[in-house]
Amino acid sequence: MPPRIARLSTSRLREFALIADLSRRFGKTGRSVLRGIGDDAAIIRPLPGYLSLLTTDLLAEGIHFDLATATVEDIGYKAAVANLSDIAAMGGTPQYLLVSVAIPTGWTGSEVQRLYRGLMKACKPHGVELIGGDTSASQRDLFISITLTGIVRPHKVLTRDGAKVGDLLYVTGTLGDSLAGLNLLAARSRKRSQAGRRKHAGTEPEPVSMRDLIDRHLHPSPRIAAGRMLTSQGLATAAIDLSDGLSGDLAHLCEQSGVGAEIQASALPLSRQCRVYAASRKTDPIRLALTGGEDYELLFTVSPRNRVRLERLGLRLDCRLSCIGIVRPKASGLRLRDENGTLRRLAVTSYQHFQNKLPL
Amino acid sequence: MPPRIARLSTSRLREFALIADLSRRFGKTGRSVLRGIGDDAAIIRPLPGYLSLLTTDLLAEGIHFDLATATVEDIGYKAAVANLSDIAAMGGTPQYLLVSVAIPTGWTGSEVQRLYRGLMKACKPHGVELIGGDTSASQRDLFISITLTGIVRPHKVLTRDGAKVGDLLYVTGTLGDSLAGLNLLAARSRKRSQAGRRKHAGTEPEPVSMRDLIDRHLHPSPRIAAGRMLTSQGLATAAIDLSDGLSGDLAHLCEQSGVGAEIQASALPLSRQCRVYAASRKTDPIRLALTGGEDYELLFTVSPRNRVRLERLGLRLDCRLSCIGIVRPKASGLRLRDENGTLRRLAVTSYQHFQNKLPL
Repeated sequence: MPPRIARLSTSRLREFALIADLSRRFGKTGRSVLRGIGDDAAIIRPLPGYLSLLTTDLLAEGIHFDLATATVEDIGYKAAVANLSDIAAMGGTPQYLLVSVAIPTGWTGSEVQRLYRGLMKACKPHGVELIGGDTSASQRDLFISITLTGIVRPHKVLTRDGAKVGDLLYVTGTLGDSLAGLNLLAARSRKRSQAGRRKHAGTEPEPVSMRDLIDRHLHPSPRIAAGRMLTSQGLATAAIDLSDGLSGDLAHLCEQSGVGAEIQASALPLSRQCRVYAASRKTDPIRLALTGGEDYELLFTVSPRNRVRLERLGLRLDCRLSCIGIVRPKASGLRLRDENGTLRRLAVTSYQHFQNKLPL
Repeated sequence: MPPRIARLSTSRLREFALIADLSRRFGKTGRSVLRGIGDDAAIIRPLPGYLSLLTTDLLAEGIHFDLATATVEDIGYKAAVANLSDIAAMGGTPQYLLVSVAIPTGWTGSEVQRLYRGLMKACKPHGVELIGGDTSASQRDLFISITLTGIVRPHKVLTRDGAKVGDLLYVTGTLGDSLAGLNLLAARSRKRSQAGRRKHAGTEPEPVSMRDLIDRHLHPSPRIAAGRMLTSQGLATAAIDLSDGLSGDLAHLCEQSGVGAEIQASALPLSRQCRVYAASRKTDPIRLALTGGEDYELLFTVSPRNRVRLERLGLRLDCRLSCIGIVRPKASGLRLRDENGTLRRLAVTSYQHFQNKLPL
């Protein structure tokens, strides 16, 4: 008897066709990529004289995102930004992307393409190339795992552990917008489902300024240029990106540097839209700034003698830089001077993304 | 009013504690790792004169593994081997590992540790260091995403596209063992659940030879040494690792090289245990060898003028090398000479792992 051999399963054939299609659409690479998608591993020619950076993030449905408040393209976009922001916080230049996706039952090829379109939309302005990945079926939820590489000059890396007592604390951009945007999205989603129950009752669109906050939540800007400026000019002593919220990420930076910190509520940079939102909801915008995650701004420390040079060079960036406080000895812990001038212990919070239960 | 600030959530506190614990247990690194786990990105000093290799694999519960037939440690082990094998197929030396895990509700810290113990057990013999990763909760299933880096000398990389007409086709080790082992595990799992229904009826253990097959399924050996020997001696024209099964992976290699192939059923290397298993199940061991995935052996092509040198050098390896066929022109397609000497078209199959439905 000749061996009985099954045909290539339809689902696997489709997987190969999908990978070929994604590779054709999104896998174009330059001369340093000797092999991208399609072999057992990607082959890269490293740039001489640089260190390599590697970061990875896993995003799980129902934990980091909810398909009720974001499109598949939005989710792809933000997944890429989470990683780009990590490279920015090291002062690096992002280079290569590997994307693994576990695809839920019921998805079509066009949904997978939209996910990759979102990913590459975030990557394209930074010249990041897709060089590999993996696709798998998923029994239920969508999972996205991204690995991003970058490069940085030796002795110019920004790490979390270099903050010195007396250094000034700075942040890029504005804080709390992403959480305000998420709250708006969640409210819109609730309204829609109520409207759905009342049959085609429709929902009012948010005012333009509120749409800006939603856009800040769905399409944050990784601060690559700011991170590179800080390293190339040797200006920062430590840096971290704000994914967990200011208070939580400040705690990480201080713990790793072995220092404490004092921040000023009145110095926290708030957008006009965030203030309007907070006023309309009778909530404190400072609380949004301290606890809201996924702003993807940079928090960094600078020696006071570099203050003038930093602020001059900062004018060339497309985001503002704000001095929000000062590094103190470890023993004084983390403190917040509130808007009445009272110094209090800063309670450390951590952003819950959409939902985050680690069942340990 | 001072801002109302929530406390760091218990689950996130536990996540940070978990990462710190995993880093302490498994994150020890050498001098080329300037920063491992614990900053925004890992920092690596590249080895001058080498190319970088990057590969990534996503493993999903119910698709690639089943917690009914494998322990958490086994799953970690095999997840690492899937990636090590990709680096082996490029002729590379594996270096650094990044591991992301989405952890299902109900898991304890000790289960997460066992997963990492399995991963590092596979990595340790090859000097691979854990430099980063991510942990997340998962609403339901376990997901593991691994990125592995490696290095290889320029001009010595093994790719899938170099096979020439007239080259000999070789494989390392033996084929079909992993599928036989999986079938045994599935049968054991069925028996146990039936025994469970009969209340404590117990199940007979498999004979020792059958346990070897189960071990081959759960603890395959990545062929790093064989891959390195092939590149360092410039012996192979193309290579691929056997994760999808011989017929499917041969089809990939031939497609990318633009060639056809003829393989001989009688030349396929079968272990004694696989023959015994096949006889006891009245199944054809050749079919196991052609269609069984996850053997993690290497399939490679060699010019006939290098045959003698290959077979001499192959004696130093801890696995056998078998010549299983010859590369033919593309027009002749993929053919199998069966044990009666008849030449037939080789039906291309693809391994279904535990289950693989890509719903596109």
